[in-house]
Amino acid sequence: MSTRFGYLGPEGTFTSMALDQWAPADGAERVAYGSVDAALAALRAGEVDGAMVPIENSVEGGVSATLDALASGEPLLVTGEVVVPITFVLAAPAGVSTADVRAVGTHSHAWAQVRGWMAATLPDAVYVPTLSTAAAAAALAAAPTEQGFQAAVCAPAAAPLHGLEVLASDIGDMQAAVTRFVLVARPGSLPAPSGADKTTVVLYQREDHAGGLLELLDQFAARGINMTRLESRPTKASMGSYCFSVDVEGHVRDERLGEALMGLRRICAEVRFLGSYARADGRAATVGPRASDADFTAARDWLGRIREGGS
Amino acid sequence: MSTRFGYLGPEGTFTSMALDQWAPADGAERVAYGSVDAALAALRAGEVDGAMVPIENSVEGGVSATLDALASGEPLLVTGEVVVPITFVLAAPAGVSTADVRAVGTHSHAWAQVRGWMAATLPDAVYVPTLSTAAAAAALAAAPTEQGFQAAVCAPAAAPLHGLEVLASDIGDMQAAVTRFVLVARPGSLPAPSGADKTTVVLYQREDHAGGLLELLDQFAARGINMTRLESRPTKASMGSYCFSVDVEGHVRDERLGEALMGLRRICAEVRFLGSYARADGRAATVGPRASDADFTAARDWLGRIREGGS
Amino acid sequence: MSTRFGYLGPEGTFTSMALDQWAPADGAERVAYGSVDAALAALRAGEVDGAMVPIENSVEGGVSATLDALASGEPLLVTGEVVVPITFVLAAPAGVSTADVRAVGTHSHAWAQVRGWMAATLPDAVYVPTLSTAAAAAALAAAPTEQGFQAAVCAPAAAPLHGLEVLASDIGDMQAAVTRFVLVARPGSLPAPSGADKTTVVLYQREDHAGGLLELLDQFAARGINMTRLESRPTKASMGSYCFSVDVEGHVRDERLGEALMGLRRICAEVRFLGSYARADGRAATVGPRASDADFTAARDWLGRIREGGS
Amino acid sequence: MSTRFGYLGPEGTFTSMALDQWAPADGAERVAYGSVDAALAALRAGEVDGAMVPIENSVEGGVSATLDALASGEPLLVTGEVVVPITFVLAAPAGVSTADVRAVGTHSHAWAQVRGWMAATLPDAVYVPTLSTAAAAAALAAAPTEQGFQAAVCAPAAAPLHGLEVLASDIGDMQAAVTRFVLVARPGSLPAPSGADKTTVVLYQREDHAGGLLELLDQFAARGINMTRLESRPTKASMGSYCFSVDVEGHVRDERLGEALMGLRRICAEVRFLGSYARADGRAATVGPRASDADFTAARDWLGRIREGGS
Repeated sequence: MSTRFGYLGPEGTFTSMALDQWAPADGAERVAYGSVDAALAALRAGEVDGAMVPIENSVEGGVSATLDALASGEPLLVTGEVVVPITFVLAAPAGVSTADVRAVGTHSHAWAQVRGWMAATLPDAVYVPTLSTAAAAAALAAAPTEQGFQAAVCAPAAAPLHGLEVLASDIGDMQAAVTRFVLVARPGSLPAPSGADKTTVVLYQREDHAGGLLELLDQFAARGINMTRLESRPTKASMGSYCFSVDVEGHVRDERLGEALMGLRRICAEVRFLGSYARADGRAATVGPRASDADFTAARDWLGRIREGGS
Repeated sequence: MSTRFGYLGPEGTFTSMALDQWAPADGAERVAYGSVDAALAALRAGEVDGAMVPIENSVEGGVSATLDALASGEPLLVTGEVVVPITFVLAAPAGVSTADVRAVGTHSHAWAQVRGWMAATLPDAVYVPTLSTAAAAAALAAAPTEQGFQAAVCAPAAAPLHGLEVLASDIGDMQAAVTRFVLVARPGSLPAPSGADKTTVVLYQREDHAGGLLELLDQFAARGINMTRLESRPTKASMGSYCFSVDVEGHVRDERLGEALMGLRRICAEVRFLGSYARADGRAATVGPRASDADFTAARDWLGRIREGGS
Repeated sequence: MSTRFGYLGPEGTFTSMALDQWAPADGAERVAYGSVDAALAALRAGEVDGAMVPIENSVEGGVSATLDALASGEPLLVTGEVVVPITFVLAAPAGVSTADVRAVGTHSHAWAQVRGWMAATLPDAVYVPTLSTAAAAAALAAAPTEQGFQAAVCAPAAAPLHGLEVLASDIGDMQAAVTRFVLVARPGSLPAPSGADKTTVVLYQREDHAGGLLELLDQFAARGINMTRLESRPTKASMGSYCFSVDVEGHVRDERLGEALMGLRRICAEVRFLGSYARADGRAATVGPRASDADFTAARDWLGRIREGGS
Repeated sequence: MSTRFGYLGPEGTFTSMALDQWAPADGAERVAYGSVDAALAALRAGEVDGAMVPIENSVEGGVSATLDALASGEPLLVTGEVVVPITFVLAAPAGVSTADVRAVGTHSHAWAQVRGWMAATLPDAVYVPTLSTAAAAAALAAAPTEQGFQAAVCAPAAAPLHGLEVLASDIGDMQAAVTRFVLVARPGSLPAPSGADKTTVVLYQREDHAGGLLELLDQFAARGINMTRLESRPTKASMGSYCFSVDVEGHVRDERLGEALMGLRRICAEVRFLGSYARADGRAATVGPRASDADFTAARDWLGRIREGGS
């Protein structure tokens, strides 16, 4: 059975590097899309079987777009995550040296991350914004003299892809920067618990906001569940109406998470389950004291006894 | 099958009036005990099949004794509660008039509740403490001239029981005072949910006090459960080591209570379940929004679906 | 200036031993009262300048009475606490040996604490309840043959006081039992902070119970304040209407306590401040992380800066 | 004194429309910047006196960039907000009719918001991504035949600016969409409280995450403060290290906010105050029960009394 994977393209972006790291996509067909929305629409339409999109701290943009696209419309499930170290190169066509660079093309987010290096190395270089880092490289390769810039700041993978030479590597001002990407699929089956999982949900408060956000978060806290990401997002309905996009440690099949999600289902207007999947870093979930599956099972056994008049 | 009921005696106390109100004890054998501890010890020993003891706001003492006796030792279950309006009479042997009363015998708690009336009506009367209100009446009846007091403050039931005449009725300073009593039994079976139930538990914190009392109470609050009584009680182990005696609305077989108790079982060093029983006042339990059994069942069904990859 | 101290008498009770331990009462006049209410009424009336009463885990009863008497009526302040180790002796008139003891007189709470020793040593002894442990000793001394019991269980201090001989010492089933007593005074001035203080307050919820007990306790928790005692007490108004009697660590002049009490004052129907006083055990208050006076002062300085547009 | 305002350009974007609505910028010099980072860097460098940037739900991107740029670097203050209704037009050079449109240029976020209209009206039109909605319009006006698209989706203001004709108005799929922009300035002075204010802060947790997010949010909740936006943002330090960007109702000079911020200052590693400013919608702050300035003042007066031994 052949499988097709969509992603936020073009080839050479950090998202395409994330897809390179995703083992199930090895040898599969890849389809680049111009936006997160387009990639997820294609997935919903059945054109692809999975889509790799940025979800956190991306240099290519797309985080809000991803959160919003997952939070509404036909249900989709996150089935995996990939973390990509973000490093930049300054790339140019053969024959161009650093001294020749008077203008640099790249995505505005990337430019923000190399500004220190640029100020020190090429203080007079003018910035020319492009749609993505890869687009800067591609344009420079296709028509070097028509871009208004002589070099591109892009992902390491983009330079060889477009036949550019690397003038300088690792020029990001911030060492250890990473972007988190998720592999999204249509509902159907869940990845089995791996022991090092994350679960993503979107929580819609009731109209009356009864209890508020604290009450929602407490459903996790009261079961020893660790939260790793939280964002309020305006719902499409009206300004001032919010939903909360949340990542927590653990798998929906863990007892503590099951109970927490049931609690949220009761008190929220809607809970959209976006998947349980293995963490990219393989770090086992932090489990609060007395919140293991064994603790839950022991408590349930005890409840059964006292409900029959025992002790 | 004959049934025997113990109670904090003697006959004529408010506790004996509580037992009068307890329908299952109609026509059963009654055994008076000199203390709450004695009554519960007899129950544990199988000498009686149930014991009526004061648990809240008693004029006869015994509240702490009751809480402590239930919180440790062989398990017992509260199977019902009775609320008795507390009214007092001034009673004396035939021939004694109010003008003859120079000293009044009663339990110190009762004296505290009639002090206003006494100050207004018999400002010069001396107070003589007795072991119980009924003991004051009994002693006066048995040997009127040897007690050092000419009248007793006691429960209305005690006067006719001991052949005393009522000099004044309803002499309590506080209208609408009541005392709450509980009927205690050995474990075995629970009263079925009545729709207007209370559940009593004793919670022992872990040594590390992790999370503290707030974490314990939150297990109820997070499931929309209303608490009606809370007392910290020193454990026998050492000063500064506490357990919490708690009444909440609802029955252990209610979904929300089952889940809360499982949560407490996990985080506490020990949870002692002391019973689910019909409230004396027949008032239906307050159920927090979205905390009904139907809400829990719907949430559990949804969880089952998403655990299989659905939505 | 002479000072008079009232206490829950008679002489020889554990409360009188507590007063023995209270240094400011050395050499002062002592007045015994028959009940906690009587002692506090005398204090309010100006007959005495202070009153020693039991507040926690007393063998003489009185805890509920104390809490209730402090929670209503003219304001009083707790200005100190004393912790008395609870040990019991079996005492009898000269010439009576253990073998002669067929019945034992004592307070019912004391009896509950020596039952194990009695069952092992004098399994056939009958229990005769008395108004207090000291009353048992006093009666036995005054009229040894008219009490229906040959020995008394009482505090160690009571035996020599009444000329009784000690047949057995330290007969309590529970080692390390203690009772906590408080010295109560009329308002006027507070003991200065000692670094090892407790503060006692009574909290009355608003009619609407908005937020409930959790909201009240959170005012302490949010400022890193440790709670050492909590009891819900029915208010005199009606059954089901509660107030909460609370001890916390720290002094009202501590920043964190001041802020917490202001918070409670805002959200409660009433806050009755019952005093800040040195702990009997001299243990310094547990202060939550970043909740010291220095932390508060630094935060206030910062607030002042940002309110003026700084950072 | 002349004033210069920077903004996320070019002219014709929604951000430029936000600046049009900002009264203090009437007649002032305007400077367009190619990115949020560039605009805020210019502000920090003193090139401009204020900068208008998108902060929530922008079609032009920039939200994460804005949050991150405010959360680190030299302190800046938000001094106002503007809410712009987001409506789109389809614009083309004179002489082009809807029937001629085979490709449409716009920013990917805008495309996502008109996809429904496009599918219904121009189902065969190809999407061509551009750097901004205004850039699509500008490019089309400058060189209509070299863009690969015949029409642009842009803000209503962009069409006349570039001499384009409007083929269709109000083509967004979502009625009532809005974007929120903020006016940012260097520290110095705060806008005075208007009665309808918002306050923005960034909260950095301590390394040990003691208490976690719930503890932080509770500092607001415990003082009756309503939160209107919350986002966890990775700190630049490392993946998995977060800060929280929060909007709450009220002004830093309100008592309840001052106390909450002091609490956060104590428990957080850092609190970055980003300003108190009038809400765009003029809606008065929701104040929790008993959380008005008068309530705080009354509580403080009471505290002063009890600290002196009063009641």
